[in-house]
Formats: sequence, C-alpha cells, structure tokens
Amino acid sequence: MKTLQVMTGLILFFLASFVVAQSQPQLNLMPMPASVQQGTGQLAINQSFAIVVTGGHDAALDGAVQRFVDQLSRQTGIPFRPKPGAAPALQVHADQGLQPVQKLDEDESYELTVADSGAKITAPTTLGVLRGLQTFLQLVQITPTGFAAPVVTIKDQPRFPWRGMLIDVSRHFIPIDVLKRNIDGMAAVKMNVLHWHLSDDQGFRVESKKFPKLTEMGSDNMFYTQDQIREFIAYAHERGIRVLPEFDMPGHSRSWFLGYPELSSGAGPYTLEGGGIDPIMDPTRESTYKFLEKFIAEMAKLFPDPYFHIGGDEVDGKQWDANPKIQEFIKAHGMKNNQDLQAYFNQRLEKIVAKNHKTMVGWDEILHPDLPKTVIVQSWRGQASLAAAAKQGYRGLLSYGYYLDLMWPAARHYAVDPMSMTTTDGAADLTPQERSLILGGESCQWAEWVTPENIDSHIWPRNAVIAERLWSPQEVKDVASMYRRMNAVSYQLESLGLTHNSARAHMLQRMAGNSDISALRVLADVVEPVKEYNRWDDAKGPIDFHSPLTRMIDAVSPESDTARRFSELVQSFVQGGCKDRAAEEQIRSYLTTWRDNDAKLHPLLEQSSILQEDVPLSQNLSALGEAGLEALDYIDRGQTAPDSWKTQQMAVIDQAKTRQADMFLMVTAPVQQLVEASAGQAQHN
Amino acid sequence: MKTLQVMTGLILFFLASFVVAQSQPQLNLMPMPASVQQGTGQLAINQSFAIVVTGGHDAALDGAVQRFVDQLSRQTGIPFRPKPGAAPALQVHADQGLQPVQKLDEDESYELTVADSGAKITAPTTLGVLRGLQTFLQLVQITPTGFAAPVVTIKDQPRFPWRGMLIDVSRHFIPIDVLKRNIDGMAAVKMNVLHWHLSDDQGFRVESKKFPKLTEMGSDNMFYTQDQIREFIAYAHERGIRVLPEFDMPGHSRSWFLGYPELSSGAGPYTLEGGGIDPIMDPTRESTYKFLEKFIAEMAKLFPDPYFHIGGDEVDGKQWDANPKIQEFIKAHGMKNNQDLQAYFNQRLEKIVAKNHKTMVGWDEILHPDLPKTVIVQSWRGQASLAAAAKQGYRGLLSYGYYLDLMWPAARHYAVDPMSMTTTDGAADLTPQERSLILGGESCQWAEWVTPENIDSHIWPRNAVIAERLWSPQEVKDVASMYRRMNAVSYQLESLGLTHNSARAHMLQRMAGNSDISALRVLADVVEPVKEYNRWDDAKGPIDFHSPLTRMIDAVSPESDTARRFSELVQSFVQGGCKDRAAEEQIRSYLTTWRDNDAKLHPLLEQSSILQEDVPLSQNLSALGEAGLEALDYIDRGQTAPDSWKTQQMAVIDQAKTRQADMFLMVTAPVQQLVEASAGQAQHN
Repeated sequence: MKTLQVMTGLILFFLASFVVAQSQPQLNLMPMPASVQQGTGQLAINQSFAIVVTGGHDAALDGAVQRFVDQLSRQTGIPFRPKPGAAPALQVHADQGLQPVQKLDEDESYELTVADSGAKITAPTTLGVLRGLQTFLQLVQITPTGFAAPVVTIKDQPRFPWRGMLIDVSRHFIPIDVLKRNIDGMAAVKMNVLHWHLSDDQGFRVESKKFPKLTEMGSDNMFYTQDQIREFIAYAHERGIRVLPEFDMPGHSRSWFLGYPELSSGAGPYTLEGGGIDPIMDPTRESTYKFLEKFIAEMAKLFPDPYFHIGGDEVDGKQWDANPKIQEFIKAHGMKNNQDLQAYFNQRLEKIVAKNHKTMVGWDEILHPDLPKTVIVQSWRGQASLAAAAKQGYRGLLSYGYYLDLMWPAARHYAVDPMSMTTTDGAADLTPQERSLILGGESCQWAEWVTPENIDSHIWPRNAVIAERLWSPQEVKDVASMYRRMNAVSYQLESLGLTHNSARAHMLQRMAGNSDISALRVLADVVEPVKEYNRWDDAKGPIDFHSPLTRMIDAVSPESDTARRFSELVQSFVQGGCKDRAAEEQIRSYLTTWRDNDAKLHPLLEQSSILQEDVPLSQNLSALGEAGLEALDYIDRGQTAPDSWKTQQMAVIDQAKTRQADMFLMVTAPVQQLVEASAGQAQHN
Repeated sequence: MKTLQVMTGLILFFLASFVVAQSQPQLNLMPMPASVQQGTGQLAINQSFAIVVTGGHDAALDGAVQRFVDQLSRQTGIPFRPKPGAAPALQVHADQGLQPVQKLDEDESYELTVADSGAKITAPTTLGVLRGLQTFLQLVQITPTGFAAPVVTIKDQPRFPWRGMLIDVSRHFIPIDVLKRNIDGMAAVKMNVLHWHLSDDQGFRVESKKFPKLTEMGSDNMFYTQDQIREFIAYAHERGIRVLPEFDMPGHSRSWFLGYPELSSGAGPYTLEGGGIDPIMDPTRESTYKFLEKFIAEMAKLFPDPYFHIGGDEVDGKQWDANPKIQEFIKAHGMKNNQDLQAYFNQRLEKIVAKNHKTMVGWDEILHPDLPKTVIVQSWRGQASLAAAAKQGYRGLLSYGYYLDLMWPAARHYAVDPMSMTTTDGAADLTPQERSLILGGESCQWAEWVTPENIDSHIWPRNAVIAERLWSPQEVKDVASMYRRMNAVSYQLESLGLTHNSARAHMLQRMAGNSDISALRVLADVVEPVKEYNRWDDAKGPIDFHSPLTRMIDAVSPESDTARRFSELVQSFVQGGCKDRAAEEQIRSYLTTWRDNDAKLHPLLEQSSILQEDVPLSQNLSALGEAGLEALDYIDRGQTAPDSWKTQQMAVIDQAKTRQADMFLMVTAPVQQLVEASAGQAQHN
C-alpha cells in the first residue's frame, strides 16, 4: 500500500512540475536548500570562468576553491583559462576561517546569489563557503547555449548540526582511497560526520603503538597506520567533515582478544573467523580499565574530534553468565543483572573518556540514569529510544531507519524523520527544549556484505536522500522530486570518482567472462537483493567473511530504478483506463525486451558458475514479459481475459514472486496489475 | 573492398571456430604465443590458490608475483587465502633476475604449462616470468564449475625485441597516473618500450635543473618533476618496460624558445598558443651545442635507458630560409640545402648523445650516410624508408601504419607488418642480415585530440593488436580471431584500471546533463570519428589546444563494434540469399532501435549545446533504420522493390554517408546492401 501511495504522488508531481518547467529550469539540488528563489536568466560557465576570494582566507579555503575549480572542470570538461584582470564569475567570502578541529555547532550557513553577470557566496565561516560551493556545483547544468548556472538566490543552513554516515571497516576492510571518495560524496551532499566503526568481532583496524598485538593478531594485516589516519582526518577536515572514531565495547570485541585474551570474559582461544557475538570484555577486572586507560589516551590523541564513540550495543551476556567470578562480582556490588554490569562498565569508561577531554557517544543500550547528561545516545533500535533519551536530558542521534545495509528503497529512508510526529514512538510529546537535544542522525553502512568494489553502490545514491532529510527543512518531502534530484546527484557523484554505477559493469563482466553483458544487464536492472537481514539465516551457519562477494546480488542496486519507472508507467496506464497508446507502447517495449531476454541470456548463465543460480530468475522474467504482453493484447482487443487464462498467469506471477538466488524480481507487481486490468478486475490503489 | 574481404574471413572463421569449441575452450590470449598446445581439463582457481617462487628471486620478481595475485583476485573477485603448507597452484622459476637497466635484447622467453594439478612458469630471466604471468592471467576464465585455467603447454618468445608505444604528452599533458595505467595495459599485452614524447611546440614537460625556464615558461605549469620521472621509470621497469625519452629537435621545439629564445632560428617572440611547425633551433651557433651538451648530460642521467630519441622530424626550414646568417653558414660550409644543415646538426647531436653513453634514435628524416651505423631510424613515413635504412645498415623501427590517432580500425593496423613482403616498399628484397636490423615497431598516440579523460579510449583496445603484430609469429593474422580476442582482452584491460570503456559513460552523461543516456549511447555506438587528419583543416585556422574535448567525436570509439557486428550480420544474411530468419530477426531488432531512436533522442540533443551538432546524425540514423526495415519488408513479401522506392532510399543513404559533426555513421553500407538486395541487385563482395 505504501508503494502505491508514493506512486500516485509521483504522477501528480510530474504534472505539477511540468507547469513550473515552462518558465524556470528545474534545479537538481540535493539536499534542497532552506530557501531558494529562482529568477530568470543564467550565468554562463565558459573557459574564462574565474573565482576570487575576497577578504581573509586560510589554506582550507584556498584548497577548497582549487578543488571546486577542478571539479567544475571535470563536470563540464572545460579547461579553464581565466584572463588576467577580467571580472570573476564567482566571488567567495568567508568572515572566519575553519576551526582547527571542527565543532559540532560550527556555523554552516551561507548565501549564494547567481546573477547573469556573476555569482557570489558569502558565509560567516569557511565551512559555510564549502557548503555553498557544493550547491554551486549542483546548479551548473548544460543548456542549449553552453554550461550555465541559473539565476537564483539561495539562503541556506542545515536543520540538524550532526549529519553523519557510519562506515564499518571491520567486517570487511575498506581502504583509505575508498573512504576518501566517500568523503567526497558526503561533502557533495553536505554531510559532516564520518562515523568510523573501527573495531568489531571480525577485525581491529587501527594501529596502536601501545598495544601492537591488536592489529598484529586481530586484523588479518588489514588496518590503518596512525600516519594514514592523521592524513585521512586532515582530508576530511578540509572538506568540512568530522571523523568520529568508534571502538565497540564491551561486546563486538572478539578481535581485541586474539592479542589480549586477558580482556575477555571467556576462556578463548579466539579467532577472527566464526560467527556469534558472544565474546565480551570483562568489566570486573581492574586490569581491563588499566588497558583502556592507556588505549583511550592513545586514541584520544590520534583522533582530534571532541567526541568518542564506545559502541555499547548488543551485549548478549553469555560469557558473563558463564563466568562465576563475574556473577559473583555482580552480586557483591549489589547489581541486579548484566545490564547493571554494563552500566557500571559504561560509567567507568565515561570517566576515562572524559579524562581525555572527550564526550562519550554510544548506542542506545548505554542509556542509564547513572551516566552524565553530556553523553550522546545513538538510537539504532527505534525513534522511541531517541525520544526517551531526550526526555531524560540526553542528546541523541537517529540511526534507526537509516541503515543502508537493509536494502530499503530510498523513499523509505526519506520518510524517516528524527523528529517523528507520531505520538506512539516519536518526538511529538517532547518539549522544545527536549527536541533541541536531538542533534541529527547518521546513515549506517555495516560491512557484512560489502567489499571495496561494491561498497559505493550500497551507499550511493540512497545516502544522498538521508543527507537531505538531515539538512533540508522538514517540509521538503516530495518523493517524486526526491527521486528526480537523487538521480541527478547520482551522476554528479560518479564524476567525483564514486563507482556506484561503473563498478556494476565490471562485476557483471566478471560473471559473464568475455561475453557481451547486455542481456545480463537487462536482468540485473530489474532485481533487488532480499531485504533486511534475510540474506543470511541460522541454517546457513556463520557468515564466511572471506567468501567472494561476486554474485549478482552483490552487483545489483539495492533499489531498481527500472522497476520503479515501469511500475509508475503501468500504474498511470491502468489508472487512466488503459487508453494511453504512447504509454502502452513503452510498456510493450519493456515487456518485449524481458520476454526475449532469457533466450539470449540462458546460454551465458549456464556457462558461468556464478550465474547458474540465476537461471530461474531469468526464466521468470521472460514469463512475466509474456504474461504482460498477453494482457495488453486482451486490453487492445477490448476483450475481458478469460478466468482460465488469468489463473494461469497468476501462477506465473506467484512463481516470479519467489526469492531466487537471494533476490526478488521487482516488476512482478506491475505485471500483475496488467493481468488484473485485462481480466476486468478493479484496481486497488 | 578491403572491408568486405575481412568480413568474409570473419564468417568463415566463426564456422570453423565453432567446431573447435566443441572440444576445447577458446583461448583469449593476446598476443597469441609462439606455440600453444591445448590439452583437456583445467586447473581450478579458488580461494586456496597459492603461488611459489622456486630458486632465486629478486625484489622485482617478488613484486611481480604480488601484483599478479592482486590482479587475479580483482579479475575473479576471490580473496585468496592459501592454506599454509598446501601444494601451490602455480610455481614460478627464473634462472636470472631483472637487469638493473632493461636491455634491448634481454631474454623475454618463457614456458607455461598448466595441468589440472598445477601450473608452472619457467624462464631464463625474470622478464620472461613477467610475460608468462600475463599469459596466465589471460588464460583464467569463468567456467560452469568456477574460475579455471585450461590445461595447456605454451612456449613463447617475442618475434621482435622492440615493441613500443609512443605517448605524446606535449600537445595535451598526460599526468603520471594515466601513464601508469597505460603501462599496466602495455605490460598485459607484452609491450616493452614506452616512447615518451616529452617536448614539442605546445609544451616542454620535463623539469630541468640546469635550464629551469624550459618548464617555467614552456609548460603552462604542466610538467613532470625529476622525482616523478624517476619513480615512473622504476614503475615501468618493474613491469618489464623500458622508457625511451624523446626531445624533438631541431623542429617541433617552439616550447623551448619561450624560456631560451637564443636557441631559435627566428626572431620570436614565441607563445605556446598558435599553430605551425615553423620555429626551429639554430644549428649554426656554437651556443646551441653548448646548451644541448649540458641539457643532454642532465637528461642522460635522468633517463637510464641506453637509447635517446632526438626527434628530427618535420623540419620545414622556413626560419632557416628567412635567416641570412644561416643561409650564409650553409654556403660557407659547402652544404647544398637545409637537409644538409639538418644532417650536420644531427651529427653534432649524435656525438653529444654518444658522449653520454647513449645510442641515438630519430625519425626517418635523420637517415643520412654521415651518421654512424649505431643510430636507430624510426619510420613514420612508410615501410620503404624502413627497408632503405636496413639496406644502408641502420637498425629500424616501424611506426608507419601504427598511428593510433588516425582512427583506423584495428584490422587495418593488424595488417601492417614490419617485414612487409610487398616488393614495392617493403622488406621483401632484404637479405636475412638486413632483416635482422628491423627491431620491431611502435604504436603512436599523438595528443592533439586527447585529454587524460579520453586518451585510454584512443589507445585501447586497438593497441593490443599492434602488440600482437610485434610479438606473435607472422602467420598469426586471422582477423576474426583477432577481434574476438581483442574484445576479451579489452575487458581485462578495464579490470586493470584502464578507462577506455567506462570514461565514455561519463562523457556522454556530461553532454546529456541529468538525462538518461540510453538513446545517446545507441547513436554513439554506431558512429566513428572522421579518419586520418581530416578532423582539422586549414580553413579552421590553427588548432586551439585549450578548447574542451567534450564533443561526441571525443567520446566515441575509433572503431564501432556495433557497426562491425551489424555489417557481418547483414553480409551473411544477404550472401545466404536473405533466408536466415534468425539473422533477419536480429537485423530487424537493430533497425527498429535505430528507427525509433531519434524520437527519443531529439529533445535531448536540442537541450545541450554540445549535442546540437548531432541532430542531423540522429535523424540520418533513424532514416537508415526505416530504409532497412522497408527493404526487409520487400524481401519478406518476396517482392522486388520498385525502382522509385530504391531511388528514394539511395538518396537517404547518400545523405547518411555525409560527414556530420566530424563523424560518420558506420551502418550506412550494410543498410545499402539490404536496399540493394531488396531491389534484386547482385551483391558485390
């Protein structure tokens, strides 16, 4: 039902936006600025384009201007050669430079005016200029007379001060160059925090000089040196992005125990392989805190951000239950249960973090009245816990609803607002003061199923809509506009060096050997990975984190653009009484391609060990194409399709709905709509 | 006529190779090894794949093995985790390590055996192992049971010891990272010389500590530092590739004169802009030789290769004619003309080069009996001058026929052999001893029309067939086999990091703004750039080397794969008497796509300043589609198409043959074939 509502909205929007488009160009800005006033005319971007900084400027601003020019040149293909002394096309002014360490509340506002004679970005801080330059890049479009930015006045500032993305580098190691291009992508959509999930059961990824065995034994030799980390943090800082380190404790910490088993609550021995989240630190030994004192002191120096994330999630307590000494400790200290023991651990940890002049951040399980109110709570379990934290006076971040690894469509993430107004679990009951404690949110890219090769495609372009949710006014929520702008920004992100589209071709080519991949693309374009965490189940045993991620599920987009467009098309066609011939022709074209695809693709699938599992998927797609075309034939002849035929087709559709190779065909529902329409059945919208 | 012969060959080959394919997998090796014996069975490549080096090994070999494993992992997507102590899948042995400076005659032979239990590469030198590892990478294919290398015994060595590619970095600067990925490509196809064309009229690209104004004033600030050059040479050396520097003298040297006008024969002043090749060095002043003494001494140290290229081409002599002092010098020294003056310059130059322990290489204009026989002559003007040089006892290299910037189809380059057997201009008359003086050849990528963005697509995959011509036995010349293998290696080259295919998507997207580029691709896939040097003519004035290279001509492939396939299909259909229904369906599918494409594409073309020039091209393609479909309709009905219809269609075809936006539609000829077939006209094959 949700999907259909969204689609209706889409169609209405297309009609509305068409009227607007007559006078003014559509802007492809994402996130949408707080205020946009479009004028008429445009500023030409040509070879003589020049930018000047007026007033003071620091190295950060100069670097940003240079990167801006490079990217504008890449986007337009124009090698700029401004004439000395000519009037600049863009003036840039910041009242204040970048802070040496970016602050949570550092001013990010800017004003950007484009006139046909020139453009101007002014901001209280260099950080605001960074944001404004990104907006300018998104304004530039090709027109019949060349590249140009439309005349516009933009006044912009973020809705939330904390707009982050978590990248897990433990389950699969993600090298610095991949992180850097993602930083570029985050900067393009004005995100400002990279939450670096640096340790987990499967790997410890940061060099520690104090405790070298953390990486020597716990990283499979895949980790960042301290030099690399410093250089990376500087890279992010220049782009207006804070780097928040997370060391997950006391759970999700198996990788620590290979080098330092004395930290653990169980007997070991530990290996990086194998599943489960049972291994936990032992919070009852003083030696644990001595270790953490030293370790956190070292990391607090390495990571300049004033915040420090200690994890704190999913402590299953099995090792505590099984350890008599720990149970004794719980009793001896008058605690009721494991939760109390974790709260005790968190309090001890918070003191260490605070001693190093950092503010502690943790997942929502850490919420406990004994913790000081400075602590920030990151909610992954729901908006209710975010509201609960705010009610207790804690600042909070929302990640529930922003898990990119759940493979949701962009629209579903887009609908999640940190200030949910539902009374059952949201912020509706909060006082304005309590609401101000909700700092923003973070998307999360957990790394069970990504490699350096496909991580971009799991993050982008969907992450851009989460960035918009956190930056733009709450009222910006038109889904059709979002998809149009998301697709535009997706192209721009590729030109920045992200590989969310281009890597797919390489991956499909690998599966296909040296064969042409056109037919394989047709199939890949209409499937989506199984959603949520259903890819794996207990019956399959623990996840093998070293197995190749080279199946079709690993290459396809989490959301099928083709399926979305086809669904919209069919929806509109059926709602209009099946009369639109142009639409029907388009629908036929899709269906014909699908019907004929299996004949082309089947031999290729059979030849490839990776693709063999996709044989039924391809057959189902062809069957759907056939069913849809027959339905259209009935419609064209003005006949009501007979029941026996419909029964047959519904069997085809039911078959096509089944999970195959951990994927779903996403064009099943619209074909069903056609079949039902041909059988004279009422449409349920 | 040439094209049609090639096509007939293709079809015959397909039939033949189909029979072979029943028993043994087709190998996608390029260059084809000297000897290949296929067996049955295969060696599985899986997660436990391990490689060991037996006997001695140096750092070069260890590095090569690591890169091999990385590339195999990238190709297959398998993260290798060999079990300690398990039998290795691949054993590698070299009798001798890499020479510190690669020699022209360094042994590159190797033997590679693959059995189902394991594989082995043995070679007299590490260089041979490098070549063998590349062959192994090309052997690995996906099969129904996983990735595998087929059982095979290969004994291989190159036909010529000098297999190079020239990259001009003067007309457009090409950064080191782009050169490095091209080095990777060259290594994959066993080329062994990068000829680095470092200076020309439009830019001087090497830092000189002795003469800093060369780059300060002559490079637009785009040049390589000496550190970068050293690092790059080491990179190439590790991959078995020599780096031959070229400083073009006395012509093509305008860029030198911005900083050092006293070297020139004219008055100046000089700028990098503007065309013409008139500015030449003044060979009559001793100060010129003093400069070159110092300069060459510096460069001879920077570039370790024993050869040193001094250019020597296209000295138009206008500045010499116009300079009375120079004319006086010619007379005073008893010379007859400018050619004699250049010969005098070359002799002086050769002595300087020799004093620095280098052997001089130059373009074929340098050929003159006064030069010592050690000099190597590189022929760009024809095979005759190569043979002439050999007859006079000079060693030679062929570049005529290997100019990648001429936009020839791969088959045309492939047909050019350094040992041409035509009696008019080739090596047919040479004695065996004279023949041995022909060292090989070099492809040339001149940089008038390339940028870092599109240079890969101008080089690859066509360069691979030149590499094969220079490595493989002379008898390896089946064109159909070449195209099949070229396409396979093209995929592999992309997985190495080359962007000859992927960059096209970015470029088309730029032209299309934020629109879908499917229809644009349909058009781009069937056009080719105008050939030879016809893109520019004098009427257009001098080339503006700073204009954007972002038009469709800059993005499309020099050779249309789609057009080649379609031509083959039509050729086969018509030759078979227009009876093959399956072929006809395929032809119809192409034609229908083209016919319908302009309606989709036209609005996009109109919206983009870059694409507007392509409007007629798109219209012509649709008209061709329509014409071809009508022809098929006549054929289907068993009718002979009427003359009036045919006249109309021929007008359409003539229109479609015209040059549009500096490109040609490459599917015009096969559509004409269909029209003629439908009109009952005899086919000319």
